[in-house]
Amino acid sequence: MSTVAVILAAGLGTRMKSRLPKVLHPILGDPSLLWALRALPPGLGGAVVVVHHGKEQVLAALEAWQKAGLLPCPVSTVDQGEPLGTGHALQVCIPELDRLGASQVAILCGDVPLTSAATVSRLCSAEALLLAMDLPTPGSYGRVIQHGDGRLANLVEAKDATPDELAVQRVNGGAYALPWPALKKALQGLKNDNAQQEYYLTDAVAAVARDIPVAVEVCDPGELAGMNSRHDQAALQAAAQRRIQRHWMAEGVTFLHPDSTLVGPRVVLHRDVLLESGVRMEGSVLVGEGCRIGQGTVITDSVLGEGVDIRPYCVIEQALVGAGAKLGPFARLREGTDLAEGVHIGNFVETKKAKLHRGAKANHLAYLGDTEIGEGTNIGAGVITCNYDGVNKHKTTIGRRVFVGSDTQLVAPVTIGDGALIGAGSTITKDVPADALALSRTPQTSRERGASKLRDRQKKPSGLS
Amino acid sequence: MSTVAVILAAGLGTRMKSRLPKVLHPILGDPSLLWALRALPPGLGGAVVVVHHGKEQVLAALEAWQKAGLLPCPVSTVDQGEPLGTGHALQVCIPELDRLGASQVAILCGDVPLTSAATVSRLCSAEALLLAMDLPTPGSYGRVIQHGDGRLANLVEAKDATPDELAVQRVNGGAYALPWPALKKALQGLKNDNAQQEYYLTDAVAAVARDIPVAVEVCDPGELAGMNSRHDQAALQAAAQRRIQRHWMAEGVTFLHPDSTLVGPRVVLHRDVLLESGVRMEGSVLVGEGCRIGQGTVITDSVLGEGVDIRPYCVIEQALVGAGAKLGPFARLREGTDLAEGVHIGNFVETKKAKLHRGAKANHLAYLGDTEIGEGTNIGAGVITCNYDGVNKHKTTIGRRVFVGSDTQLVAPVTIGDGALIGAGSTITKDVPADALALSRTPQTSRERGASKLRDRQKKPSGLS
Amino acid sequence: MSTVAVILAAGLGTRMKSRLPKVLHPILGDPSLLWALRALPPGLGGAVVVVHHGKEQVLAALEAWQKAGLLPCPVSTVDQGEPLGTGHALQVCIPELDRLGASQVAILCGDVPLTSAATVSRLCSAEALLLAMDLPTPGSYGRVIQHGDGRLANLVEAKDATPDELAVQRVNGGAYALPWPALKKALQGLKNDNAQQEYYLTDAVAAVARDIPVAVEVCDPGELAGMNSRHDQAALQAAAQRRIQRHWMAEGVTFLHPDSTLVGPRVVLHRDVLLESGVRMEGSVLVGEGCRIGQGTVITDSVLGEGVDIRPYCVIEQALVGAGAKLGPFARLREGTDLAEGVHIGNFVETKKAKLHRGAKANHLAYLGDTEIGEGTNIGAGVITCNYDGVNKHKTTIGRRVFVGSDTQLVAPVTIGDGALIGAGSTITKDVPADALALSRTPQTSRERGASKLRDRQKKPSGLS
Repeated sequence: MSTVAVILAAGLGTRMKSRLPKVLHPILGDPSLLWALRALPPGLGGAVVVVHHGKEQVLAALEAWQKAGLLPCPVSTVDQGEPLGTGHALQVCIPELDRLGASQVAILCGDVPLTSAATVSRLCSAEALLLAMDLPTPGSYGRVIQHGDGRLANLVEAKDATPDELAVQRVNGGAYALPWPALKKALQGLKNDNAQQEYYLTDAVAAVARDIPVAVEVCDPGELAGMNSRHDQAALQAAAQRRIQRHWMAEGVTFLHPDSTLVGPRVVLHRDVLLESGVRMEGSVLVGEGCRIGQGTVITDSVLGEGVDIRPYCVIEQALVGAGAKLGPFARLREGTDLAEGVHIGNFVETKKAKLHRGAKANHLAYLGDTEIGEGTNIGAGVITCNYDGVNKHKTTIGRRVFVGSDTQLVAPVTIGDGALIGAGSTITKDVPADALALSRTPQTSRERGASKLRDRQKKPSGLS
Repeated sequence: MSTVAVILAAGLGTRMKSRLPKVLHPILGDPSLLWALRALPPGLGGAVVVVHHGKEQVLAALEAWQKAGLLPCPVSTVDQGEPLGTGHALQVCIPELDRLGASQVAILCGDVPLTSAATVSRLCSAEALLLAMDLPTPGSYGRVIQHGDGRLANLVEAKDATPDELAVQRVNGGAYALPWPALKKALQGLKNDNAQQEYYLTDAVAAVARDIPVAVEVCDPGELAGMNSRHDQAALQAAAQRRIQRHWMAEGVTFLHPDSTLVGPRVVLHRDVLLESGVRMEGSVLVGEGCRIGQGTVITDSVLGEGVDIRPYCVIEQALVGAGAKLGPFARLREGTDLAEGVHIGNFVETKKAKLHRGAKANHLAYLGDTEIGEGTNIGAGVITCNYDGVNKHKTTIGRRVFVGSDTQLVAPVTIGDGALIGAGSTITKDVPADALALSRTPQTSRERGASKLRDRQKKPSGLS
Repeated sequence: MSTVAVILAAGLGTRMKSRLPKVLHPILGDPSLLWALRALPPGLGGAVVVVHHGKEQVLAALEAWQKAGLLPCPVSTVDQGEPLGTGHALQVCIPELDRLGASQVAILCGDVPLTSAATVSRLCSAEALLLAMDLPTPGSYGRVIQHGDGRLANLVEAKDATPDELAVQRVNGGAYALPWPALKKALQGLKNDNAQQEYYLTDAVAAVARDIPVAVEVCDPGELAGMNSRHDQAALQAAAQRRIQRHWMAEGVTFLHPDSTLVGPRVVLHRDVLLESGVRMEGSVLVGEGCRIGQGTVITDSVLGEGVDIRPYCVIEQALVGAGAKLGPFARLREGTDLAEGVHIGNFVETKKAKLHRGAKANHLAYLGDTEIGEGTNIGAGVITCNYDGVNKHKTTIGRRVFVGSDTQLVAPVTIGDGALIGAGSTITKDVPADALALSRTPQTSRERGASKLRDRQKKPSGLS
């Protein structure tokens, strides 16, 4: 016997005008539904996500999040089929909730991303609770009618409300905790004799409230705001960002220009991290103490050690960056980049599946893919690991304290021994022994007055450029 | 007989402190005067732009806009000469308006960019109308004095107003529609016996109002705000941007960070376009459904098909990008770039006058200029089309399914046949037949212990790097 | 006998949660303490900075600023030792102030960066003055108690205040000017019999006020706001930026997107400079008339002539850029870059210690380090100056009107004569005479059907890519 969460995620989201289901639209890089699921407390008996519109996309997303270990409990799904109201969404869950042995049910909306973990936790441990909010202009929200002692008396949709009820400013936040037996009984007795001919979940909640006391908790409206339009999405992202920045500022992080900075909910920052303007971090990102993140840098799913110095405009994905590394400006770290302490990756350098050992450097204009590079090795400007032959990818292995001259092509698979030295402009197709000097170079020739002759010849030196 | 618009654009704009005429200062990439002209409805008998300060620059701009098809009607200009007031600006237009056979005249200001097309259209179809606005602190604006029935009674410059008139909060928006014969008569009778010794257009309008009824329409002050300082320019751009974003959000476009995003007035976005922070689009830009535009990307005068995926920090000008193409980060598409479906242009790649057929790829560090590249061809890292010989530009033609090895220089004019394969590091100066394997490579040599010898020699291996 | 400023800079800044002393945290690139020092008027007898926490870092910063000529007067430091209150901070300065022959003392806080030079100047020339501010919710600020004629009567810390005193909304701004003999006497009589057992500077000021009249000047609270948290830091930077932008807008500078633009206090902009969104300028930067600074460009300690055109995303440090130069997008100018009039530096080009004469061009993908390049010379795409041999750096000297073909490596030290022409893909290791045509090229070979043979061979052409 346990508490099970039900997340409503079947809606179409008409006003979003999107092919993407509403609950998959992102807030700071994480879809709304993922925010809702991640706010669930540990120890639940499971979460049931009610899906319908865009079902395949939602199922694929849930599977990916499960795989990535992002979900706090087992998640199953129920297809609502043709949607006949929020009460109907719960009715279709009855078998699944019974199967899970639910004793308590907490109901939340997949398009309400910013309910805090603390609030959701209180909801999940309550016996019978409704989350409400007080709005100066309650508009089309359902009204919360309470008994004198605060217990819930009734929930009235605005379309079905009397003028007196419409005057109530306390509105339904759409999040409930109820004992499953009582709720189940109420769901089974639901009728759709209302203005919209829908089965209202609110009617079931009100029915439960006639049998047992249901408490009402008034929350900050920001916690219960839903995403129904692109305007809402932008506003929710801004609100989420303010909340996250307040937290990290108090922990000793400098945001030089908070308004242009976007830090996602799964980012962890340490003391004396300094974020310049326009920085964006999404997914799971860990940033060590004293890192400086240069203007406009974008970091996704990566780990940075202490004191990393990132100059402006780096784009970093799925990378590990060791302490004291120096990156950028304009460095591009792709998946599988693994940089040890003190590595330098300079401007216009791209790395992919590249393991660089301590102190290795590639400061200018290079492509390092499918490669391992030893301690203290220096990669010259314009060096390219030719990892792709048109059919397969191959590996380049470079030893310690190697000096790879500028504009060298390393045609993989190829291995360069420790301490080797490769002359500028070489095409390296065979392994180079340790300490060897390797070259592939044609001697320089020089034709006297050759330049003016060439310029003269029809003013068109076609054979050169 | 028809309606002709007169646009006042002769002013110096002293407070702008600029060498550029005020009406050419841009709002979201389009000069203020272009905003004013583009708001004119179709079907007018013409537009007359009154110019003087910076006349050459304004004429050049008008010619360029005409050429680019940006103007909704024929535009002629009249030089005001030494400016003697707004009434004088209209007086000098008398011959041109007669020549155009104007029956009605609509008068607008070239430094008021945000009057909506709907408002301008109402003005141009009115018989006699003044646009006004209600300001809580009307300051130095001219006051609108109305009859009891709302008709215009008088227009009073603040400097010439009585205390009672100064208390009026309804002010002149500077936009008028009047029958040409009545206005012409009033212009011919204008006097300059006022505080500033200028010929006031307002006096002419007031004179007309004494003969025929002139209606007053009160507009949102945002529609009539003028650009008199750099502060105004920034405020107008911000207001224009809010208006444009509201529109596209309602159409199903996500602005992840609206405050840092700038979308110009001639940009068309489709459903499920997602704009990350710092994106800027100016000029004529068309973005197909489902495109993702990465952070900080700048797009000017370009067309993107459906589902294009642009990673951060691309700079794109005068380019066509086919459906499903993948660009960036740090891709630079210049004029004459034409990418077919599914083309990939990766980091640190520049294209110019480059036609890439379906599925061609250039993923890293390359310069592709004056070139056509066939379907499915792969361009390696560091490849350069040597299109310039110091005197002329030449073309590089590459066939289908060609594999161009890394760091190859293609010395144009040169043609590579279908299916050819070029080894890394080659300098290609002659045509390569279809299916051939082409190389220009010196065999690799390796001197044992050559590296340490070189390092020892005076610790200065001068001949290599 | 003269006025000496005392800057309090010994505090720990607990709420910053930082290893960096609070007064070294930057606002628009300049540390708070530097703002405080630079606001001092010329002609002072010296400034005494009271240090303790993070003393070594503060001393190093002061030395660097002195060297860079950023300080308006001689600065000495006094170590407070274990801090026993603000009065104690002044007590430890007694010998230094006597040594400097101070007749007047102006006391300011190193963590209050935005007091304007005008206000500090008034303070430094006053006989006895306290700066105060009026706050609607004065909270924990010390209260200013005045006589009926406005003279200072007393200063009361909030913790020691009576309810009547707490109701006072005029609070102590922490900046004082006092005659040194009177202050010294008061400091020598200070007691610490208060709630915090500290020696309060305010008690000393109050004691002086009992002997001589001390005036109270009420300032804009923005001038006296301190930096006690990362929130404060962000707010101070935003306030400083608004002040700076207002100034430059009035001088004829366009900020296309003020909210994302950061211009430091030591930046000088001229008329018709246009800053696109996301531009940041820090340190000592001078920008000539009519320059356009492209989106997201970062400029530090550099000088730009008139009419420089910078496209988006350039990163420029310690560089001189001549009039009419064209840069970017994605140009990286490092220390010691010196570009003459009309130079072009294009995308993905890095320069360092590089002097380019009039009209020289490097438009694509190049590294130019430790080099001098003559007038009118054209550097092809992919050209690299191989300035580092693994041990030392060497210089590349290129003459006038030279044409360096694409992908050339110039192995320094090396000199290229005027008018020389270097073929694409050359490795240049020896000097090239003037007007010579230099090459190091292997003739191109082509194997018929070689491509399909290679593809067939195990579908794995290992020797090429």
